[in-house]
Amino acid sequence: MTLNRDDPREQKRMAVLRTGARLFNEHGFDRTSLDDIASELCVSKRTLYYYVKNKDDILFECNRLAIEFMEETMTESRNNDLPPLERIAMVMRSYMDLLSNEFGACLALSKDNVLSEESRKILRKGRKKLDQAVRDLIVKGIKDGTIKPCEPKLAAAAIFGAFNWVPHWHKNGNHEAYSEIANSFLDIFIDGLRARR
Amino acid sequence: MTLNRDDPREQKRMAVLRTGARLFNEHGFDRTSLDDIASELCVSKRTLYYYVKNKDDILFECNRLAIEFMEETMTESRNNDLPPLERIAMVMRSYMDLLSNEFGACLALSKDNVLSEESRKILRKGRKKLDQAVRDLIVKGIKDGTIKPCEPKLAAAAIFGAFNWVPHWHKNGNHEAYSEIANSFLDIFIDGLRARR
Repeated sequence: MTLNRDDPREQKRMAVLRTGARLFNEHGFDRTSLDDIASELCVSKRTLYYYVKNKDDILFECNRLAIEFMEETMTESRNNDLPPLERIAMVMRSYMDLLSNEFGACLALSKDNVLSEESRKILRKGRKKLDQAVRDLIVKGIKDGTIKPCEPKLAAAAIFGAFNWVPHWHKNGNHEAYSEIANSFLDIFIDGLRARR
Repeated sequence: MTLNRDDPREQKRMAVLRTGARLFNEHGFDRTSLDDIASELCVSKRTLYYYVKNKDDILFECNRLAIEFMEETMTESRNNDLPPLERIAMVMRSYMDLLSNEFGACLALSKDNVLSEESRKILRKGRKKLDQAVRDLIVKGIKDGTIKPCEPKLAAAAIFGAFNWVPHWHKNGNHEAYSEIANSFLDIFIDGLRARR
């Protein structure tokens, strides 16, 4: 589904999702009620039902939007001629950019085991595609000799782990910009993956 | 507090904590009740109160035990003459060993914001010491020229993030041993941090 961001209803729906994501990130999904979200937006709970089905729907949509954001980056990363290591850096910079907003942080902080089997399947498929895109780039780099021999699954897990952990510790009061954190991390990961000649 | 593991009461208390940690890790703290823990152990809820004060106390003790486990490793890592990079590998192998058990996974998966301010302070101090031990080793390596110039705080955050994320994805059905994951991760981090001559 492509969003029409000029549609006033869609704008209000996005405000509901963004507020939900922010409260889930701060207090946890189980400790946030629809009443909390309504009260934060100064609307009635009944108004919320005009935009979302229930609390699970908010979590699902926040995660879905986060994954959707990454899809464009992944397509770009497949359709260019940069060396695999540079493409990994490109994908991960974009991922850090995502983590800096409510939806990305929600993707990293929330567990989907509260959702229905059907919702979970959709989200897992999305996450898996993202993970697979990075694994494929690692395989490509090992094949063309620019990345040292390693287990692509575990190398991708190390990279995503480092990035996903950022919303766990980067709260108000930490001063590093997300882009600065991404650069520091990639300095380590790129050198750590590069084949030595 | 040093545990006397031969004490039958202490053994039963540890069984309560271990079961609590396992259920928290599987279902989340908020979705696990004392009744669930009692039923898993085939005892009454009343029996649990002989070993723990309440559910928060179980989470606190699980986290405290995990941190206590790391303290010995940190002391060892300070009192030996290995190069900083090898000491970092030693600390992180031990940390992965911790993450492979219920208490370590609980430390990585649980949020302490459900606990009292006092409990949180104790746990944060413990986590901070662990983080600081790795940062100190990075600073040492930069000074002696074995580690490339980098921001120690962010380098330590990348390492702990990759490791802490493991209990999020390594479930039954994943076949890698924890020690194998630690080796793969450290292959990347050690090369990524090493100074080039």
